[in-house]
Amino acid sequence: MQNFDYCTPTRLIFGEGVVEKLPEVMKSYGHKILLTYGGGSIKKLGLYDKVKDLLSDFEIVELAGIQPNPKYDPSVLEGVKLCKENDVDVILSVGGGSVLDCSKAIAAGAKYDGDPWDLISYKVKAQAALPIVDIITLAATGSEYDCGGVISRTETNDKIGYVDPLLYPAVSFLDPTYTFTVSKKQTAAGCADAMNHIMEQYFCEDSTLLNDAFMEGALKSLMINAKKCLENPEDYKARAEMMLDCTYGCNGIYALGNSESGWPCHGMEHALSAYYDITHGEGLAIITPRWMKHILNEKTVDRFVKYGVNVFGIDASLDAFDIANKAIDETYKFFESINIPMHLKDVGIDESRIDEMAHHVAINEGLEEAWAPLTEKDIADIFKASL
Amino acid sequence: MQNFDYCTPTRLIFGEGVVEKLPEVMKSYGHKILLTYGGGSIKKLGLYDKVKDLLSDFEIVELAGIQPNPKYDPSVLEGVKLCKENDVDVILSVGGGSVLDCSKAIAAGAKYDGDPWDLISYKVKAQAALPIVDIITLAATGSEYDCGGVISRTETNDKIGYVDPLLYPAVSFLDPTYTFTVSKKQTAAGCADAMNHIMEQYFCEDSTLLNDAFMEGALKSLMINAKKCLENPEDYKARAEMMLDCTYGCNGIYALGNSESGWPCHGMEHALSAYYDITHGEGLAIITPRWMKHILNEKTVDRFVKYGVNVFGIDASLDAFDIANKAIDETYKFFESINIPMHLKDVGIDESRIDEMAHHVAINEGLEEAWAPLTEKDIADIFKASL
Repeated sequence: MQNFDYCTPTRLIFGEGVVEKLPEVMKSYGHKILLTYGGGSIKKLGLYDKVKDLLSDFEIVELAGIQPNPKYDPSVLEGVKLCKENDVDVILSVGGGSVLDCSKAIAAGAKYDGDPWDLISYKVKAQAALPIVDIITLAATGSEYDCGGVISRTETNDKIGYVDPLLYPAVSFLDPTYTFTVSKKQTAAGCADAMNHIMEQYFCEDSTLLNDAFMEGALKSLMINAKKCLENPEDYKARAEMMLDCTYGCNGIYALGNSESGWPCHGMEHALSAYYDITHGEGLAIITPRWMKHILNEKTVDRFVKYGVNVFGIDASLDAFDIANKAIDETYKFFESINIPMHLKDVGIDESRIDEMAHHVAINEGLEEAWAPLTEKDIADIFKASL
Repeated sequence: MQNFDYCTPTRLIFGEGVVEKLPEVMKSYGHKILLTYGGGSIKKLGLYDKVKDLLSDFEIVELAGIQPNPKYDPSVLEGVKLCKENDVDVILSVGGGSVLDCSKAIAAGAKYDGDPWDLISYKVKAQAALPIVDIITLAATGSEYDCGGVISRTETNDKIGYVDPLLYPAVSFLDPTYTFTVSKKQTAAGCADAMNHIMEQYFCEDSTLLNDAFMEGALKSLMINAKKCLENPEDYKARAEMMLDCTYGCNGIYALGNSESGWPCHGMEHALSAYYDITHGEGLAIITPRWMKHILNEKTVDRFVKYGVNVFGIDASLDAFDIANKAIDETYKFFESINIPMHLKDVGIDESRIDEMAHHVAINEGLEEAWAPLTEKDIADIFKASL
């Protein structure tokens, strides 16, 4: 077991109707709010009007149109400018993980005099950040309970995970009913995203009995509940369980004391969505089983055996490699069963830029240090196997 | 799934040698420290000298001799007096859960002008508390990651769980090597205490797939790791895993969104240790299987089936009541196997005060509202079955 230093100070307010507490919560952070959101789904949901109504006593500036795979230019830059010009006290992020990720970068940028990219690219360490409150409307990224965000810079094909303990949301509101209208495509992609967050932590050298049980339970819960959500989008309990399973995804609690894994699938997928702007969860689902097949060997097989037996109920008396291969097949089949496109060509990616992406990943993501080390050639091979 | 509002702001610094960070941590809370500890085991461990050495630049006042089942008089009262007289900035609790529980009551009392019992008995709501830092030396109560403490008042046989979000430790240091010298008796009692914390949350009406997996995993981990710790007290990984399993015990994260259970075994055990000052974990281990047998019925049986199949691997194809009864027997046998005295008479309790204790529990603990409601007669029957 590895030493660790862990603190997640975020307050989770969870359940149907909890948004009524919003005014009371916001009051403790100030009067001037930057309200951030995406493409308008919160308007269809009635949540935009609800929030404006609840916060009628506050001064609100808005940043709309934050895209999936949120962009440094214009979203982060515009948000920072709005905060500075309006002397904003607190950011209220309403939407999915992309809106919240973008809001985190804005929160840090708003308290920094230079170019916000200095912070995101880790040239300069942030000294302060605006407090963030969020209302999450998609079960997927876990951004509501972690201190990181992923920001894309189009002109350089950079997609950077920006992490700083200053960026934990102060308060996250999670009302599962807001996810009732999430499309089947996004429900499935959210499930794949959350499952991959867990797998990235599960596949490592040194874990504990408790962490393994926690993660295996979360994977099973995600698979069962995502299917229920797809069958009946208004199944409250299924939406609620899926929401909380996702929430724990990236703040480290699934794997306290575990050794580093390197998050290889995220490293590779970030290139795919930086170059092609695909849906992150779909990219992960496509890559994951190919990565598994690629790294399966004498050194890694035991971990796949545990995964196969405990997550998919594969007969423990079989040969280790048979269990591992069955487990990988089951992983693939599950993603396929929730209608995720399982080939890169299905999401518009052909072989033309694979070598370029593999090179980008190899020099930026440090995957030679991962649990199962990956060279540039390994990465290119995994991309090719995913076509 | 139930609505919830959850936040555990405590920072956990975990692993061998982490205590070196103590000066840096304490500095952020002030200069004048109340150092609280128990009967001297931290001196044998060398931890007392280590702490004094690390904190040689600070001003330290000491409160020693805090007992298991910590007492309002003298410990809480003396601690509050020391804080007020010396204008203490921060409390440093070094020891097990009893020292930390006592320190929490002191932290609240130090910021209150009246009789601290007003706070503990919930007559008055605390408005502030001193910050608490702790170094935990026993894997058991989980006090290092929750905002509660249990305080005994001898003259009235009161043993009260005092809970307030102000009382989360600011920082908890957990170094598993400090538990290498914990006796076999206390290692076993700590395991039973932590297991019961989980069972108290597990046995309820409404849970989730993830919570169940998390708790079942924790129970299995505690059983496996406690046995390893008893066989080889210096097994670092086993001590470390047991320590973290215990840490999650009482802060709610094992059961976010679950319905209330009523914590019946704690309600009953508090009377036993208030009247007889027995070891809390032993009292819980004695009561738990008798409580289980007593409440097993058509309404509760399914929960015992899940427990039996997932925690003890009992054949799921058997009759439900057979599985449940086997699960209860396994629970009993596990406690027996780690040499916990399994009868009240083994810990010096006879039938003479059972009715009095049952009456005390019935009027103070609200167990008629528990998942499986308990009347005064039920409580007396469980005590009698435990003799």
